[in-house]
Amino acid sequence: MSRRPEFRLLTSDPATKARCGELLTSHGIVRTPVFLPVGSAAIVKTLTPEDVRGLGYDMILANTYHLYLRPGIDIIEKLGGLHRFMGWDGAILTDSGGYQIFSLSPLVKLSDEGILFRSHIDGSEHFISPELAIAYQERLGSDIAMALDQCPPIDAPREKVEEALERTYNWAKRCRVAHKRSDQALYAIVQGGLFAELRREAAETLISLDYDGYAIGGLSLGESKDMTYELVDISCSLLPWLKPRYLMGVGSPEDIVIAAGSGVDIFDSALPTRIARNGALFTNDGRIDITASRFKEIDRPVSDDCSCYTCRHFSAAYLNHLFKCRDLLAYRLATIHNLFFINQLVTGLRQAIMGGSYSQFRDTFIKRYHQTDEEARLENKREWLKKQKG
Amino acid sequence: MSRRPEFRLLTSDPATKARCGELLTSHGIVRTPVFLPVGSAAIVKTLTPEDVRGLGYDMILANTYHLYLRPGIDIIEKLGGLHRFMGWDGAILTDSGGYQIFSLSPLVKLSDEGILFRSHIDGSEHFISPELAIAYQERLGSDIAMALDQCPPIDAPREKVEEALERTYNWAKRCRVAHKRSDQALYAIVQGGLFAELRREAAETLISLDYDGYAIGGLSLGESKDMTYELVDISCSLLPWLKPRYLMGVGSPEDIVIAAGSGVDIFDSALPTRIARNGALFTNDGRIDITASRFKEIDRPVSDDCSCYTCRHFSAAYLNHLFKCRDLLAYRLATIHNLFFINQLVTGLRQAIMGGSYSQFRDTFIKRYHQTDEEARLENKREWLKKQKG
Repeated sequence: MSRRPEFRLLTSDPATKARCGELLTSHGIVRTPVFLPVGSAAIVKTLTPEDVRGLGYDMILANTYHLYLRPGIDIIEKLGGLHRFMGWDGAILTDSGGYQIFSLSPLVKLSDEGILFRSHIDGSEHFISPELAIAYQERLGSDIAMALDQCPPIDAPREKVEEALERTYNWAKRCRVAHKRSDQALYAIVQGGLFAELRREAAETLISLDYDGYAIGGLSLGESKDMTYELVDISCSLLPWLKPRYLMGVGSPEDIVIAAGSGVDIFDSALPTRIARNGALFTNDGRIDITASRFKEIDRPVSDDCSCYTCRHFSAAYLNHLFKCRDLLAYRLATIHNLFFINQLVTGLRQAIMGGSYSQFRDTFIKRYHQTDEEARLENKREWLKKQKG
Repeated sequence: MSRRPEFRLLTSDPATKARCGELLTSHGIVRTPVFLPVGSAAIVKTLTPEDVRGLGYDMILANTYHLYLRPGIDIIEKLGGLHRFMGWDGAILTDSGGYQIFSLSPLVKLSDEGILFRSHIDGSEHFISPELAIAYQERLGSDIAMALDQCPPIDAPREKVEEALERTYNWAKRCRVAHKRSDQALYAIVQGGLFAELRREAAETLISLDYDGYAIGGLSLGESKDMTYELVDISCSLLPWLKPRYLMGVGSPEDIVIAAGSGVDIFDSALPTRIARNGALFTNDGRIDITASRFKEIDRPVSDDCSCYTCRHFSAAYLNHLFKCRDLLAYRLATIHNLFFINQLVTGLRQAIMGGSYSQFRDTFIKRYHQTDEEARLENKREWLKKQKG
């Protein structure tokens, strides 16, 4: 059944702005709040689509930028579209490529017309416009497409942020006009950096374009967590109650739990899978580093209360051994563990919201979950953002 | 049920020396001829034990050398033995470490007492003797253990090979005496380089020690295939008919099919899994290189007549994309394909032998299967052997 994805709000928590809903897509129903595993290049790293589904996920994120460069939109279209190409029959949200161009590729020239950029793979020159970003996503056949936006750096001065907002708004108008595919929803992205006022302005102007949904972009890029939460809360309060809100690139356990309280419906982040490959595994008490020698002889699973494939089959000692041997199985088992953890968390979160006990769920989780030291976190984040670009 | 693995010969092909049998172990019955996937460090690279079992394998090979260095025999013993440590409830054959010391680690001193060697991981100095090799394997708890041997280089002059044989024989005597574990079989290794006469001598002396089974070692190390097959045939003809024969480190599809005709029961080789990670995939027509650009748009599986997980779920184009992206999923899916192919081949081989049609099976397979060019193969082999040491 081919349909334009629709959002249906089911319930909201009486004490907060937390809410539960459903995205009805041609590729199944997706319950919200939902976390999307990142499969930029049509691969959720180390996992098969069957693994991802088995972990409880009904929707993933893929990236127009990555797929445009490799294997190319033409090939994917020729092979029957993105779902068929990668063997995933669940829903897919595609990012437009805007953020990736600014964060991954050497920029050549940015104009109102579009963006001239270089491939981070082979240095070749490419051009993307709002119309092309839409055309590519229509040809990929994702269930939800994103408008092309300009995401300024987190430390950009106000006038630069204003300039980017103005361009993002103009592009959003052009994307809205260009978009024709009837079985694909189109979301716009609210930018505005760390300026609450500009975010308000961005939200208001984009709402006037009547998009299917609204994303909050340009956050979790090096600012403090308190600042992130505050801006998410402000942005959500400005957005239409009956349309879905998607907080882009945010996905630590505590971020998901807290931002859901502001009314975020969709999350995506490479964090759970990326840190898994470095040996950082989620537990209800916080992250552990499975490569630490204290796990060398631990004949129990990583987490006693975890029922993921990894914890059901392997001891912490064996995982530690796999990481020491740098065997690829290590990265797969760690990815499975972290994605299972996030899905359990989001499932619990939905149940709590449905049952009217969101605040209690949040407080219990936050109290037990030992968060990464804020200063170390910001330092890591900056390092990672720098490395991405280089 | 804890039992000393026993070999039961079921049938032999009337026209050749090909045969079928069973290894009865405490961890299940293993039908022969059998191919053992290599899991040197208690990991069949990229796969879970469940994957390996699902591919039809009932026995794997692990390596005392690798496990001694990492995570250490103590840890594995403390965690309940090798089967439990790695979560594999099938049978395990452990190599003694002799071959790996000579091929992987900088040798410090070789004497009749044992071998002083350096770890290829951190350069630390270690000593192994026949008695220690047995003790380690008993503590690991493998189903079949191997005697410590000395494997001379393929181009060693006759006197060096004789010297190694003498030492291997003396060590085999000591291993036989040292071995106590009642639920573990012990096999000796016939060496002798490329000298048929020396192989005869080695076989005869080792047979007098009444081992549970006999391995043929030191082949497929850079000599021509014809030479390998000839020496395998000679070696097999010298070994006791009712005891299992294990051809070590040999495992290309054509090698397995041909050597089974000489009466080999057990094979192991890292080749199918190693070349998979380079994108070389087996088909009934020969190997293909899935990274080649001709697969970029192929919307069919790698092999139309293959029913492995990879071929059932993914197109050649998607696999090509995974390899281009260097995603770890590529290596896993390729490994699954190649191990499935080998198991299908060995299953067909057993059926043919049971049905008295081995020669026909061999001829049909060899006629269709395009073998790698012999000169290119030998060049690659030499390169690989050099790299292993460096």
